Amino acid sequence: MPSDSPTVKVEGVRAFGGEVRFYDRWTESREAIGAEIAAERGSVLVPPFDDPFIIEGQGTVGLEMLEQAGVPMDQLLCGASGGGLIAGINLVMAEQSPDTRVIVVEPDAFDDTRRSLEAGRRTAHPQGSPSICDALMAPIPGELTWPINRRLAGAATVTDAEVAEAMRFAFRWLKLVIEPGGAVSLAALLSGKVEAKGLTTGVVLSGGNVDPGLFSEIIEGRFEG
Amino acid sequence: MPSDSPTVKVEGVRAFGGEVRFYDRWTESREAIGAEIAAERGSVLVPPFDDPFIIEGQGTVGLEMLEQAGVPMDQLLCGASGGGLIAGINLVMAEQSPDTRVIVVEPDAFDDTRRSLEAGRRTAHPQGSPSICDALMAPIPGELTWPINRRLAGAATVTDAEVAEAMRFAFRWLKLVIEPGGAVSLAALLSGKVEAKGLTTGVVLSGGNVDPGLFSEIIEGRFEG
Repeated sequence: MPSDSPTVKVEGVRAFGGEVRFYDRWTESREAIGAEIAAERGSVLVPPFDDPFIIEGQGTVGLEMLEQAGVPMDQLLCGASGGGLIAGINLVMAEQSPDTRVIVVEPDAFDDTRRSLEAGRRTAHPQGSPSICDALMAPIPGELTWPINRRLAGAATVTDAEVAEAMRFAFRWLKLVIEPGGAVSLAALLSGKVEAKGLTTGVVLSGGNVDPGLFSEIIEGRFEG
Repeated sequence: MPSDSPTVKVEGVRAFGGEVRFYDRWTESREAIGAEIAAERGSVLVPPFDDPFIIEGQGTVGLEMLEQAGVPMDQLLCGASGGGLIAGINLVMAEQSPDTRVIVVEPDAFDDTRRSLEAGRRTAHPQGSPSICDALMAPIPGELTWPINRRLAGAATVTDAEVAEAMRFAFRWLKLVIEPGGAVSLAALLSGKVEAKGLTTGVVLSGGNVDPGLFSEIIEGRFEG
């Protein structure tokens, strides 16, 4: 796990019996570390996004949204780190609801998918900026996810302050605990970064592993960004 | 609304355009105040629990639980203030799942339903104790709800500390924002106040209107009770 992971995520893994190996997000390769551990122990590596089965499994979120919405969605907002979740959803929509525009939302400083869409090829974002969205910090779109995500309909980015406001909204009105990286789509909607007037919009809220201290700052309006 | 209502509930009502008349929980009758306002303005009074339609509507929670559980429930835990929600659920279970034991859970100092079950008649709890469970402070079971709830299978009570721990658990693992009064059933389960080993147990979590300050205290482990 990245050495700057939220405590709640580290404790969560340990609570399920997991052993944690920390790495530096900026100077080490988790892919290399993972491959080394898997080789040593003869274990199976489950990649977070660059894997056809992971993409396919995450696509079931799109299937559930279609089923639960019950009406055609004009657009669907989803965050992206390596892009597995939105790739799976994008495949589902292409097949079952081709008129639904799938739009990626990223933190301002981690907009590698937006940059890649603009450039027409896999492009990294500059390194080193901080964000509360610890789950969305992959440096570049995946090798398998990018050929799918290059067909996304659009991109938006949000600030940490907009993400915090979305988390506060979810606490107050939805009664849901959403972690920063899981709240970017809602943030794009609430801040007007994506136009939604008159449009049926699906929003993916994904992940609720947020440290109590940060969550308290945000819901009490003490978060400074 | 009671003058000691959480700010979030008062703001919630006002946000929907409601006008708030405060009353003292211990010295004024909200039924009398409500009747007076309704008479003055020719408006319809919607009672919180002592009404056949309210009880019937709240019973749909039981219908949804049966549908979603998909397996027989040995027992079902639900909080009670005036007892409308648990009365509706109790009617549903009597009809559709008579082997499910419906058990009421109340805050320690607001155990009027437990006292009534023990006495075999509507019994008030002593007045004046504090509790974080602001939603469960009705002094005595309702006139319509009691004849239904007298057939409840059992009763348990929980402390504010147990309620706080259940709210923290819901934040951490269920990713849900539950208000104190809505967390009593989960508190009874987690604290072992109701035996659940080997039993399929349904738990009603109801209500998420909790002030950010109290929620922060609880999830950060600063709540002193």
